[in-house]
Amino acid sequence: MIKNKYIYTFREGNKDLKELLGGKGANLAEMTNLGLPVPEGFTITTEACKEYYNNHETLPLEVESQIYDAISNLEEQIGKRFGDARNPLLVSVRSGARASMPGMMDTILNLGLNDEVARVLANTSNNVRFVYDSYRRLIMMYANVVMGYDKDEFEKYLDDYKKERKYESDLDLDDEDMVNVTTAFKRIYKNLSGKDFPQEPKRQLVEAVKAVFRSWNNKRAVYYRKINDIPDDWGTAVNVERMVYGNLSTKSGTGVAFTRNPSTGEKGLFGEYLMEAQGEDVVSGARTPKTMDVLKEEMPSVYKEFYNLAMKLENHYKDMQDMEFTIEEGKLFMLQTRIGKRTSKAAIKIAVDQVKEGLITKEEAILRIKPEDLSGLLHKTFNEEDAKKHTIIGRGLKASPGAGKGSIYFSAKDAIEAKNRGENAVLIRLETSAEDVEGMHVCDALVTIRGGMTSHAAVVARGLGATCVAGCQDFQIDALNGKLHTKMGETLSVGDVVSVDGTNGIIYKGDVAMEDPEITGEFAEFMRWADAESNAKVYANADTEKDATIARKFGAKGIGLVRTEHMFFEKERIFFFRLMILSGDKETRKKALERILPYQQGDFEKLFKVMYPDTVTIRLLDPPLHEFLPKKGEETNNLANILHVSAKVIEDKVDSLKEINPMMGQRGLRLAVNYPEIYEMQAEAIIKAAINLKKENINVVPKIMIPLTSSMYEYMFVKDLIVKKINEVLTASNEKIKYQIGTMIETPRSALIAGVIANEADFFSFGTNDLTQMTYGFSRDDSEAFLKAYFDNNILKDDPFIHIDEYGVGYLIRMAIANGRKTNKELEIGVCGEHGGDAKSITFLNPLGINYVSCSPYRVPIARLTLAQAAIKSGAKKN
Amino acid sequence: MIKNKYIYTFREGNKDLKELLGGKGANLAEMTNLGLPVPEGFTITTEACKEYYNNHETLPLEVESQIYDAISNLEEQIGKRFGDARNPLLVSVRSGARASMPGMMDTILNLGLNDEVARVLANTSNNVRFVYDSYRRLIMMYANVVMGYDKDEFEKYLDDYKKERKYESDLDLDDEDMVNVTTAFKRIYKNLSGKDFPQEPKRQLVEAVKAVFRSWNNKRAVYYRKINDIPDDWGTAVNVERMVYGNLSTKSGTGVAFTRNPSTGEKGLFGEYLMEAQGEDVVSGARTPKTMDVLKEEMPSVYKEFYNLAMKLENHYKDMQDMEFTIEEGKLFMLQTRIGKRTSKAAIKIAVDQVKEGLITKEEAILRIKPEDLSGLLHKTFNEEDAKKHTIIGRGLKASPGAGKGSIYFSAKDAIEAKNRGENAVLIRLETSAEDVEGMHVCDALVTIRGGMTSHAAVVARGLGATCVAGCQDFQIDALNGKLHTKMGETLSVGDVVSVDGTNGIIYKGDVAMEDPEITGEFAEFMRWADAESNAKVYANADTEKDATIARKFGAKGIGLVRTEHMFFEKERIFFFRLMILSGDKETRKKALERILPYQQGDFEKLFKVMYPDTVTIRLLDPPLHEFLPKKGEETNNLANILHVSAKVIEDKVDSLKEINPMMGQRGLRLAVNYPEIYEMQAEAIIKAAINLKKENINVVPKIMIPLTSSMYEYMFVKDLIVKKINEVLTASNEKIKYQIGTMIETPRSALIAGVIANEADFFSFGTNDLTQMTYGFSRDDSEAFLKAYFDNNILKDDPFIHIDEYGVGYLIRMAIANGRKTNKELEIGVCGEHGGDAKSITFLNPLGINYVSCSPYRVPIARLTLAQAAIKSGAKKN
Repeated sequence: MIKNKYIYTFREGNKDLKELLGGKGANLAEMTNLGLPVPEGFTITTEACKEYYNNHETLPLEVESQIYDAISNLEEQIGKRFGDARNPLLVSVRSGARASMPGMMDTILNLGLNDEVARVLANTSNNVRFVYDSYRRLIMMYANVVMGYDKDEFEKYLDDYKKERKYESDLDLDDEDMVNVTTAFKRIYKNLSGKDFPQEPKRQLVEAVKAVFRSWNNKRAVYYRKINDIPDDWGTAVNVERMVYGNLSTKSGTGVAFTRNPSTGEKGLFGEYLMEAQGEDVVSGARTPKTMDVLKEEMPSVYKEFYNLAMKLENHYKDMQDMEFTIEEGKLFMLQTRIGKRTSKAAIKIAVDQVKEGLITKEEAILRIKPEDLSGLLHKTFNEEDAKKHTIIGRGLKASPGAGKGSIYFSAKDAIEAKNRGENAVLIRLETSAEDVEGMHVCDALVTIRGGMTSHAAVVARGLGATCVAGCQDFQIDALNGKLHTKMGETLSVGDVVSVDGTNGIIYKGDVAMEDPEITGEFAEFMRWADAESNAKVYANADTEKDATIARKFGAKGIGLVRTEHMFFEKERIFFFRLMILSGDKETRKKALERILPYQQGDFEKLFKVMYPDTVTIRLLDPPLHEFLPKKGEETNNLANILHVSAKVIEDKVDSLKEINPMMGQRGLRLAVNYPEIYEMQAEAIIKAAINLKKENINVVPKIMIPLTSSMYEYMFVKDLIVKKINEVLTASNEKIKYQIGTMIETPRSALIAGVIANEADFFSFGTNDLTQMTYGFSRDDSEAFLKAYFDNNILKDDPFIHIDEYGVGYLIRMAIANGRKTNKELEIGVCGEHGGDAKSITFLNPLGINYVSCSPYRVPIARLTLAQAAIKSGAKKN
Repeated sequence: MIKNKYIYTFREGNKDLKELLGGKGANLAEMTNLGLPVPEGFTITTEACKEYYNNHETLPLEVESQIYDAISNLEEQIGKRFGDARNPLLVSVRSGARASMPGMMDTILNLGLNDEVARVLANTSNNVRFVYDSYRRLIMMYANVVMGYDKDEFEKYLDDYKKERKYESDLDLDDEDMVNVTTAFKRIYKNLSGKDFPQEPKRQLVEAVKAVFRSWNNKRAVYYRKINDIPDDWGTAVNVERMVYGNLSTKSGTGVAFTRNPSTGEKGLFGEYLMEAQGEDVVSGARTPKTMDVLKEEMPSVYKEFYNLAMKLENHYKDMQDMEFTIEEGKLFMLQTRIGKRTSKAAIKIAVDQVKEGLITKEEAILRIKPEDLSGLLHKTFNEEDAKKHTIIGRGLKASPGAGKGSIYFSAKDAIEAKNRGENAVLIRLETSAEDVEGMHVCDALVTIRGGMTSHAAVVARGLGATCVAGCQDFQIDALNGKLHTKMGETLSVGDVVSVDGTNGIIYKGDVAMEDPEITGEFAEFMRWADAESNAKVYANADTEKDATIARKFGAKGIGLVRTEHMFFEKERIFFFRLMILSGDKETRKKALERILPYQQGDFEKLFKVMYPDTVTIRLLDPPLHEFLPKKGEETNNLANILHVSAKVIEDKVDSLKEINPMMGQRGLRLAVNYPEIYEMQAEAIIKAAINLKKENINVVPKIMIPLTSSMYEYMFVKDLIVKKINEVLTASNEKIKYQIGTMIETPRSALIAGVIANEADFFSFGTNDLTQMTYGFSRDDSEAFLKAYFDNNILKDDPFIHIDEYGVGYLIRMAIANGRKTNKELEIGVCGEHGGDAKSITFLNPLGINYVSCSPYRVPIARLTLAQAAIKSGAKKN
């Protein structure tokens, strides 16, 4: 039987063994082998951790015996011995998982101390205070981490001890005090555990290792993994390392440093250190650390050595490093190195610089940036300093990033009027519906009290690129009196100014200074590199000239989704559209639609122009008609007055259009089967717009998209009526216009029969939102209430409305693409809907052969980068 | 080039050429070749009809010239000539499609008459009246059928003519009158058309043929095809046949007869005839026809000849024949034979008798009965005679067959109280919801004013086997005053008795006598034969002991679906269930559920007992919780009083449970993820029931079915909690009970991942209702409003909620079965939901390898027969 190897010395490991040794262990080994000054030690593998769990949380004998062997070897290597009072080996025990989980798991220092070692060491080192300070810390950490007791009793004792003596800080404790405290701590330990503090260093070590393994499953580690998407079954490694002390003398110290500035990306050592200190002291804020420039002056040779090592590490790892070091009696030790975290802005500058320095290739640069991280660069932000000066009055979900401020209003109408007066406006609603869209579009920020990340408000706001905080339960609206009450007890009035930070889900009272997004300089250069690698295009979902202009600015190569329904909500149009809905006969409906036609045509002309010569895909009317009718009593009366009918007529119509499951009701092309005149009008408006632009030498090829197809017959019925109307228009005007007709694939059935539909479609656009809803049977409007338990119980790892469900929905998409292309080789295939802007989803979809993704303008750069990464990863050639 | 053959003489055709010659033509040819006395003639094929339509409704020259050839041959064959006044050929032109469409298309008789032929024939035949009567009929038929003019002007002229002369009937018209009328008809014809009545017989014939072709697309034929599922592209054939006259003399006559009694199935000639009459006269009711027994006395040799021919035909066709015959001057002619229509009762008797007579095999007998036709035999019916004596006060959709009568009530509560008082009760509601189910269950019949064939009322009623007429828009409820107003102006009061005929969609005023269904005698024997052929079982959907008993009676081999939610609506339980819903914490919920447990356990024990030793499949709670809370103000107050909470608490809870798309909301196993205690209680009740029955030596193996699975993780989460609870119960009682756990496959995703789920499931049950809803994105609650246009425009041929969608939903099912069985060879697979009782759907599903279908008790025999037929058709061996 081959013996499993559960332990690697730092000399045996290397940076590529992260899975086995954890990030910290792998890098300690790598540094050791690069010849850097790393305290000697070894790593107990993640496999040992798994065995521990497989073995009902018991350390297998094999692992335990390998630990003893490793300790013997370490003793040999450095000439010190566990428990040898004259020459004791003291070690630290630190967790180190595959992915960095800072502060989530446990660490024990000074392991190896016991009564005898402490006594002899105190004598021989002439540093009684240091030795007993270390020993009392060990006892407390051990009690806490290994035995699971609260630290309170220890800390309380120490506090009382200091109070009795009127000491102000730990620094006032002298040699004798430290001995006293240590004695007391041992007593407390015995009271808690019923046993003496263990004097056998090997026992201490084995128990400490087990404690670190256990800490993999402590609450905060589990939670951290959950939100950071780290699998529960990875386990942690344990690093056992000889102690070095930055607090040993005035020639000792400790620090952390980066090879580049993590905020700006600028090249050069960036960090802080403290003399006479241990690791935590640098970041604890108790003393103010010094910058690395000071080290250069104070200890020039140590600085120089560190600088050289740092540069060596960056060149070796080909990325910015984040390092911890300790100086013990003037000697430099490297305690950790890892890829440094950085802001998005810095990340791009570093990547671009490193390409130019020849350190990495463009492809490596592209792969290095997390697409999602671009999002922070694409929205306005509040000036950090100024934000700190304002009161936070509410927090909610980060529904749609960006920053916006203005006077608060509780209805879309009021917000629109305020905007018309030239005010900035923040719309605060209990929840939103299609009626609010115009207000959402013009307002500077949106806050809802109910609803989650996928509520109407959140989805529409992300689509519009509007700043939105959703589900802010800190607010309560008193619309009658025009007041907003906050949980913190503030009361604001309509018109008061607030600042809404959608990126962080915060609402401030008052006016916070703002900063603009830019895609210039290194960012622009980086995106050009990305596009050059990509094998699919990024279109935008855009309903207005404004959206289209932003999409252009962010590099969209076309519009993949124009939602024509949003065009019906503007003042003059909604009247005629409501008249259309309320008409009992086709002729009256046609007349009402004729009045809307010029508006639609004008909208289309504007969109075509902005995007020219790129493509514009227009989805014909999709939502159920009841969304266009008023909901409240007063509005009904107004409408009734305008239309010269009784309010009851309108109420009856609203009632008759009510549906039990509107998501699966009369919408999409089902509207056209029942009211062909609606799509006829839209087709006419599209073609007339194209004819009109021809006069300006703008020759567009409109794409007409039919929503919600579920059968070939209904698709053909609707396509035929569109084509017939188009031919009428072309014949009447004696013009020729090329156009394309395609369909959304958003019902499971349309995906199942895609091979047939492809015969008659120029393009498919997957509407993955609806497809996900119907494939799971999850109503997005309702799922929040029940999916929480799914996330809490780990039943759903990812929200399928955010990251596409690869097994179910993905199967349908894969099948539809394959069958569609089998029938129609020229078929253009895209994805619109939320997943079109999600990096994880795009990474899945790109290799299936899609031609484009379409997402909200503000996510266009994210999609561009993701597609580039997907193409590089799949080794696909650019086309 | 091969010349297309568009015409077959009766000598050339045979009964197997129905596609080409139509039913009538094929059978005329068959009889001719059997040597039966059929007037000579030929058939113009359905292909000619198709060419006519392909050729923009013009008769291709090739067809026209073949008609001329055929006429020449016919002239040759019988020695008469078109237009030869001394010896004229007169023919009838009759339509005849592949499927019988009685009365739907046009017929022209006496073709070949013109002025000269009539004059000479009148002279030579000495029968002026007969000749001119024939001629004036030809003119009117030709004007109407060929030229498309209304018959009104002709009929009005004849009426006026008779009135002037004070004639009482056509029989009063003498020779001269007939000549006058003919002259007048020719004048009217000329006024209408601007031309003289065509004198050229060949032109008459060609125009008549075209007219018959055209009549294929007249409104009533199109409608008939639609409702009878006959494809529009079949076209009709045209039969041209020498005229024979049953009205020529006193030795002439005409009749129709069956070889067996079409009402009872009894063997023997069954029919009627009239002397001195033409075909229509027998059925017109103007004169009372005589029975065949009379013919036996009056014309024994003709009778004997006919009897022999009839028996020959039945033996030849191996089925009961429906024949038309004419006697011309004592000579018998056969004008038509076809398979006779019969009642369901007769159909079964005939099939069983014919097997016993050795005429057909059991398999043929089984294939001969349309499963759907059994439905009329499985429900109570009203006595036909008595029904005629009562006023019809409303009509609606035949939502659920059967007959029921009682006092009318407008709320479930009132109906239940009436039943408790011992009254019969008919529940009349605007529409129904889950709350009404108890009332629907106990009432004798249900009528709704809104809703269609797939409304809640209709679906539940069919499930319960309750008589239901849905969408009866003739009614208006005035609940406040306890009045029911009908469109016909009647007003009924609460407590008035009505009789509801669900089979025919009729509501009668008053008490109509009823008759009971039986499965005895030949019916029972027939069903036993069917079961012997079948390779799958029929289970029933049954929620109560009563349902289960009926299911047993109708031959169910188990229960495939117990909907446990219906059990929660009974008085004592609903209180605790509502208490459970309103509880803020798990412990209170558990306590409330503990109170329901004994009821559920009792229910299960009863079901297990009734079905023992057959299987019972219990579906855990499925519908959303809001269905269990009261809807109206008053009920809320009552509940609030009982629970000692404010009405607002209940209203808030109702509000918080409201969903935008409840169909895709918190229901099914999603309830168990959020409230594990519900399924735990149900699992406990099931296992305790099994333990209890063990004492009586009833050893059941309960099947526990988890609804609405869409992912493996949620299924396992729920399965684990059930298994854990069961183990607790078994350990506590120190018992062993075998059980099975499986899942509904009703979301598209569950079908897509069925291969994985099958690892952990003992059985699958396809919930094809929901699967259809989600695959199409059609909400069954709402689809009526928009699907009408789909049916009207031929976009949907079948309602996918009635007949399973083979391409989309069927694909998912096929895939799920294949993948499921690949993983788990022992996997039992069934179908519950409406399609489980639909013959067309079962025929599709059976060859996919399902083990059972589960349907409402009243549909069990239909499913049994369908499975037998499917097995026979697929040639599968019985297992």
